[in-house]
Amino acid sequence: MSAIRHALNVKREDDFAQWYQEVISAAEMAEESGVRGCMVIKPWGYGIWERIQRLMDARIKAAGVSNAYFPLFIPLGNFVREAAHVEGFAKEMAVVTHHRLIADGKGGLIPDPEAKLEEPLVVRPTSETIIGDAMSRWIQSWRDLPLLLNQWANVVRWEMRTRMFLRTSEFLWQEGHTAHETREDAMAETLRALEMYRAHAEEELAIPVIAGEKPENERFPGAQGTWSIEAMMQDGKALQAGTSHYLGTSFAEAANIRFQDREGGQQLCHTTSWGVSTRLIGGVIMTHGDDDGLRVPPAIAPHQVVILPMLREDDGDAALLEYCEKLRAGIAAQDALREPVRVLLDSRPGKAAAKRWDWVRKGAPVIIEIGGRDMEAGKVSLLRRDRLWNEAAKPDFAAPTLEDAVSGIPAMLADIQDTLFAEAKARRDANIEQIDTFAALEEFFAADKRYPGWAEVLWSKPTGAELDQFSERLKALKLTLRNVPMDDVPIDGTCIFTGKPAVERIYIARAY
Amino acid sequence: MSAIRHALNVKREDDFAQWYQEVISAAEMAEESGVRGCMVIKPWGYGIWERIQRLMDARIKAAGVSNAYFPLFIPLGNFVREAAHVEGFAKEMAVVTHHRLIADGKGGLIPDPEAKLEEPLVVRPTSETIIGDAMSRWIQSWRDLPLLLNQWANVVRWEMRTRMFLRTSEFLWQEGHTAHETREDAMAETLRALEMYRAHAEEELAIPVIAGEKPENERFPGAQGTWSIEAMMQDGKALQAGTSHYLGTSFAEAANIRFQDREGGQQLCHTTSWGVSTRLIGGVIMTHGDDDGLRVPPAIAPHQVVILPMLREDDGDAALLEYCEKLRAGIAAQDALREPVRVLLDSRPGKAAAKRWDWVRKGAPVIIEIGGRDMEAGKVSLLRRDRLWNEAAKPDFAAPTLEDAVSGIPAMLADIQDTLFAEAKARRDANIEQIDTFAALEEFFAADKRYPGWAEVLWSKPTGAELDQFSERLKALKLTLRNVPMDDVPIDGTCIFTGKPAVERIYIARAY
Repeated sequence: MSAIRHALNVKREDDFAQWYQEVISAAEMAEESGVRGCMVIKPWGYGIWERIQRLMDARIKAAGVSNAYFPLFIPLGNFVREAAHVEGFAKEMAVVTHHRLIADGKGGLIPDPEAKLEEPLVVRPTSETIIGDAMSRWIQSWRDLPLLLNQWANVVRWEMRTRMFLRTSEFLWQEGHTAHETREDAMAETLRALEMYRAHAEEELAIPVIAGEKPENERFPGAQGTWSIEAMMQDGKALQAGTSHYLGTSFAEAANIRFQDREGGQQLCHTTSWGVSTRLIGGVIMTHGDDDGLRVPPAIAPHQVVILPMLREDDGDAALLEYCEKLRAGIAAQDALREPVRVLLDSRPGKAAAKRWDWVRKGAPVIIEIGGRDMEAGKVSLLRRDRLWNEAAKPDFAAPTLEDAVSGIPAMLADIQDTLFAEAKARRDANIEQIDTFAALEEFFAADKRYPGWAEVLWSKPTGAELDQFSERLKALKLTLRNVPMDDVPIDGTCIFTGKPAVERIYIARAY
Repeated sequence: MSAIRHALNVKREDDFAQWYQEVISAAEMAEESGVRGCMVIKPWGYGIWERIQRLMDARIKAAGVSNAYFPLFIPLGNFVREAAHVEGFAKEMAVVTHHRLIADGKGGLIPDPEAKLEEPLVVRPTSETIIGDAMSRWIQSWRDLPLLLNQWANVVRWEMRTRMFLRTSEFLWQEGHTAHETREDAMAETLRALEMYRAHAEEELAIPVIAGEKPENERFPGAQGTWSIEAMMQDGKALQAGTSHYLGTSFAEAANIRFQDREGGQQLCHTTSWGVSTRLIGGVIMTHGDDDGLRVPPAIAPHQVVILPMLREDDGDAALLEYCEKLRAGIAAQDALREPVRVLLDSRPGKAAAKRWDWVRKGAPVIIEIGGRDMEAGKVSLLRRDRLWNEAAKPDFAAPTLEDAVSGIPAMLADIQDTLFAEAKARRDANIEQIDTFAALEEFFAADKRYPGWAEVLWSKPTGAELDQFSERLKALKLTLRNVPMDDVPIDGTCIFTGKPAVERIYIARAY
């Protein structure tokens, strides 16, 4: 049996970090911009983000949340008001100090000293404080509650070590911000957003996730509680893929968000915030990519089916293109995953085989090649990206009739979506190990298997200095506490840190 | 006949600028943010922007243009390369000089002197230079051309005098950037984008526009030619509502965008850029607003039909809501203007009459009120926003049966769309006057009619110093040259500036 000749130069098992960079480059997802820590998101990567936006936005709107837009710039003073919040963010923000440039007399430009701002402006790292200002103007009475807002925006956090999609100085995201009458209402919204993220990750990104609460030392700066969805990448590391925060009343106090309650008294609102970002695309790559490039789940693929005519630049091309167009139109007229199928007839000049490998690396779910012989036989040559190779180490083309190819596409796309999820879930589940003692934990992560996965442990939910101490022990092993899953599994055992009776399960992993 | 009691306090004829601010406030479109020159776009205003985005994005994609995303920050050095470009923009840019804050020891925060950037970064006022860098990496050969890119983004131009939607320091827009083999191809793309803007403005925003070329002194900084769509507001002023630029090869030279041509030689690309922004929303307000608030054209209305149940907070409400839901579902199941009808059942607490006036001020195209008597008669009470008042100065409700109301909605929405356009076009055409001499021009704009409209004049297309001199004469009258319309009307007459034989028509107006 001959060896498969993969489309990438680096294999996941050889160097996962290098493989990740190669996928991003080979699939034309993004590239370094030359501006520190900022990436250019190329059309295929941005197309995936547009799909994520459209699907998430529909979920957000269905929950009664309204989109709005708030300023990019936040006055410095806003950050000073919420002490814990500024502590968490102050270290890493882009600061605007001037509003004009002048010639430096040497052919260059410098900030005009005459145009220095009285109060510097911060480029938003997140918008709690500026949206809180608006909420304080918009909310008078309990009748104005809940106030449910969302913003799609760019934000900037000055990162020293960046990695495309996972950690960049500028990134794109949505940030939900809501205000409520009671703690109960705000908590319900926090968990609704968390469940929305879980459903999006699992049903649309095909990424299995654990939805759970972060330990108190991993909370969002200033939050009373932070929940996350955590996904396992193919190197066993955890990726925090979305967060939802219950902010209590402290942000409301800082921004003066008060309402007249049903009895006529004045009260502070309970607020929440929640967000997902372009980081999700990094999660898609590290969950579904293989040694031939990316595999995009059909629900978020900009093109779900790509048709490649094998053009010969002769008189026969017209008939071949007509045959391909018939195929395209037949596929486009159908729905898959509750939307019209997105199909591209790629008739750009170039060899079909070269274009096939471009689309393999980009991860289009279904690739169909059409040559003269296919057309004469009334057939097509069809490749599923999720099962690329046959036993002879060749691309595993099927040869259905044109009619069968058309009618089979909706079920095939649904099957690819399910297959990618099932594959990722089986791998994730096989790489979570229940561990009872700290010594076993050390052994699990010290073992010479390269990508050890996650440990599931019992703990007594330590807090404060005790929690910090255990976190330091984990940090020495390059490990972090991920989250406490939200399920009803009975707890019976002792805490691996304290030896006390355990009250919760928690996941421990290396993380991005 | 009694006088109409309008929903706004200020009438257009009394104080147009004040009226504009009141519409924005009363329709809950936007508000001042407290951050200099930046506005908060509230849900109704942002919902209109989302509709504009969706419709424009479909046109952009249909033209084969791909969306991508480029950095918010542009290194200072990029601006220095294109001399005319920096000259045009250098005066009004936000400059990032630091990447960290530290405590000032007095409870506040200051930019950390240790974290000063070696090269300041400019917050993008437009992205020609940073996208040009990417193009220079992505283009090698003529086979890579045309390269057709678009970005939806926020941009910042530090404005001294701001007005919501029309001129704000931060605004939202799309910017198309394309590179081509030849001048002809680039010119064709420039004019394709212009025609796309004309069609969007007229067919979707219901704003009649003149598509034409700007005089050379009104070109985009560094461009070889700038085309615009110009709309007439109800005060007779012109609004430049979209622009498309042919940039020649000078931006390609500055960013080194070269390609190997079909003969193997190296050539500079011809580039274009084109954009529309949230300014369009200001145009919608000033074209379609009336003394009762905004009137949103159905194609861009977030809700096209709003149903208001007259709830009594008693046992009868359940049946009333069921009747309203039947109406809602019947309307939602239909298409209007080639999309499913967007209908809202607004069952929030509050009096129906108060809610009616909220939706009148917001400009929902059709408002339907349902009380117990309507339900018993199997009818609805229906108000068209474009013909709000009857001859008795009362809201002009119609009372169709529920079935007729449902089946009539698609045609009614199409008719409202057409009516708003026809009304705006008739007003625009009635307020353009053909003027033959400079003396007559002075008289036309000096006349004591408050909102004089536009002058259409013949000119000999002066350039350089001569053009500047005429522009100064106009400026003294607070007038500007708008654009030269793109049609084949034969020119016969003399230039109102030079007295020479005319070669073109051009519009002159006061402008936003």
